[in-house]
Amino acid sequence: MDRPLDVLNQAKGKRVVVCLKNKKEVSGTLKAVDIHLNVWLEDASVTDDEKTTKYGKMLVRGDTIVFASPTD
Amino acid sequence: MDRPLDVLNQAKGKRVVVCLKNKKEVSGTLKAVDIHLNVWLEDASVTDDEKTTKYGKMLVRGDTIVFASPTD
Amino acid sequence: MDRPLDVLNQAKGKRVVVCLKNKKEVSGTLKAVDIHLNVWLEDASVTDDEKTTKYGKMLVRGDTIVFASPTD
Amino acid sequence: MDRPLDVLNQAKGKRVVVCLKNKKEVSGTLKAVDIHLNVWLEDASVTDDEKTTKYGKMLVRGDTIVFASPTD
Amino acid sequence: MDRPLDVLNQAKGKRVVVCLKNKKEVSGTLKAVDIHLNVWLEDASVTDDEKTTKYGKMLVRGDTIVFASPTD
Amino acid sequence: MDRPLDVLNQAKGKRVVVCLKNKKEVSGTLKAVDIHLNVWLEDASVTDDEKTTKYGKMLVRGDTIVFASPTD
Amino acid sequence: MDRPLDVLNQAKGKRVVVCLKNKKEVSGTLKAVDIHLNVWLEDASVTDDEKTTKYGKMLVRGDTIVFASPTD
Repeated sequence: MDRPLDVLNQAKGKRVVVCLKNKKEVSGTLKAVDIHLNVWLEDASVTDDEKTTKYGKMLVRGDTIVFASPTD
Repeated sequence: MDRPLDVLNQAKGKRVVVCLKNKKEVSGTLKAVDIHLNVWLEDASVTDDEKTTKYGKMLVRGDTIVFASPTD
Repeated sequence: MDRPLDVLNQAKGKRVVVCLKNKKEVSGTLKAVDIHLNVWLEDASVTDDEKTTKYGKMLVRGDTIVFASPTD
Repeated sequence: MDRPLDVLNQAKGKRVVVCLKNKKEVSGTLKAVDIHLNVWLEDASVTDDEKTTKYGKMLVRGDTIVFASPTD
Repeated sequence: MDRPLDVLNQAKGKRVVVCLKNKKEVSGTLKAVDIHLNVWLEDASVTDDEKTTKYGKMLVRGDTIVFASPTD
Repeated sequence: MDRPLDVLNQAKGKRVVVCLKNKKEVSGTLKAVDIHLNVWLEDASVTDDEKTTKYGKMLVRGDTIVFASPTD
Repeated sequence: MDRPLDVLNQAKGKRVVVCLKNKKEVSGTLKAVDIHLNVWLEDASVTDDEKTTKYGKMLVRGDTIVFASPTD
């Protein structure tokens, strides 16, 4: 049976875009995800309005996520 | 006995519109839903005020949902 | 013994009005409710300020509800 | 031993005023309360700023309550 | 071993001031408290900006409390 | 193994500063802390913008805390 | 299997930057992290708009974190 979290489980190693509750948008290469929707991204960047900041590896806390979508 | 989540369980494969707490509206073809109300949408699009952005597959976190309604 | 959720359990098949935390008001015919206060409405309509939008069946997430009242 | 919820358990059949997180104030005759602080009111009315709206029976979700006080 | 909730357990029968998340301040004589920090106050009064409203007995929901302090 | 809450467990009897979600800052002598991060402070004072209010003993609810730091 | 929290487990002893829900940014040397994402930082500093405040050791409550990223 399909489960919603499989959207992310199947996207490991691919680029994903994550929309956050604080209106920021994070994108990166998905390395891991858990049942709380915490995600581990590599080569992450955060966009806030027009400004983009680059990070290396990043842990995004699951309860701040509105939606996530693979972009590859 | 009818259960509220059956509204979505019966809508798999159909278009649904999802109203979010951050005032955005997401629509897409429902692929899966779990008891937390996390939903997997295909051919998703997000409308924010007048602007609509298209995505492919998308996981919407259940606790950001206000209501969901099948549109087919 | 009376339980608060019986207000809704006894209102199945009747019209109810539901006041939401995002200031919207939803009304519809109550089909089902669960212990999380998730509700299934038929012939639902959502009022936001002066504007009313009609939907068919709708799942309203329980944790967005402020109060609910049968109107029949 | 006294328990805080006894304030409401002892007020069944009496008028109570309930202050909500969305700044509205609800008053009504208390019919039932549960451990989540969900309350069942009869002859409820909701005051928002200067405007009062009358309802019949009402379920108020516990997690929207700031405080409750018997007025009889 | 001292536990934080003992601040209130030791203050039963004394006046306490309770600062709420909605910026209101409640004071009253503490009658009971539970592990959720729900409190039962007697002779309660609520201060909002400059305005003070008097109540009799009151149940304050624990998750709306920022801090509480005995004043006797 | 070090645990984050040991920052506070090791600070008992010392002054700590606690930053709250409502932008207030509380400082006091730490008497006790539990796993919910509820803290018991003695000789507490609360700073809001430029204004400081003094209290005696105080219970700060854990879920209102952003961070806490010993200052001795 | 990789788990999201390993981003932080592997960063012990290194500098991390933590973005908070209240828009503040905390940086420090990571000493410990638990499953709630509570973190213990040494030589912490907090940046709010243009202003940076220095602290010694600090406990950051996990549920205030949006994302965390090692910077070494």
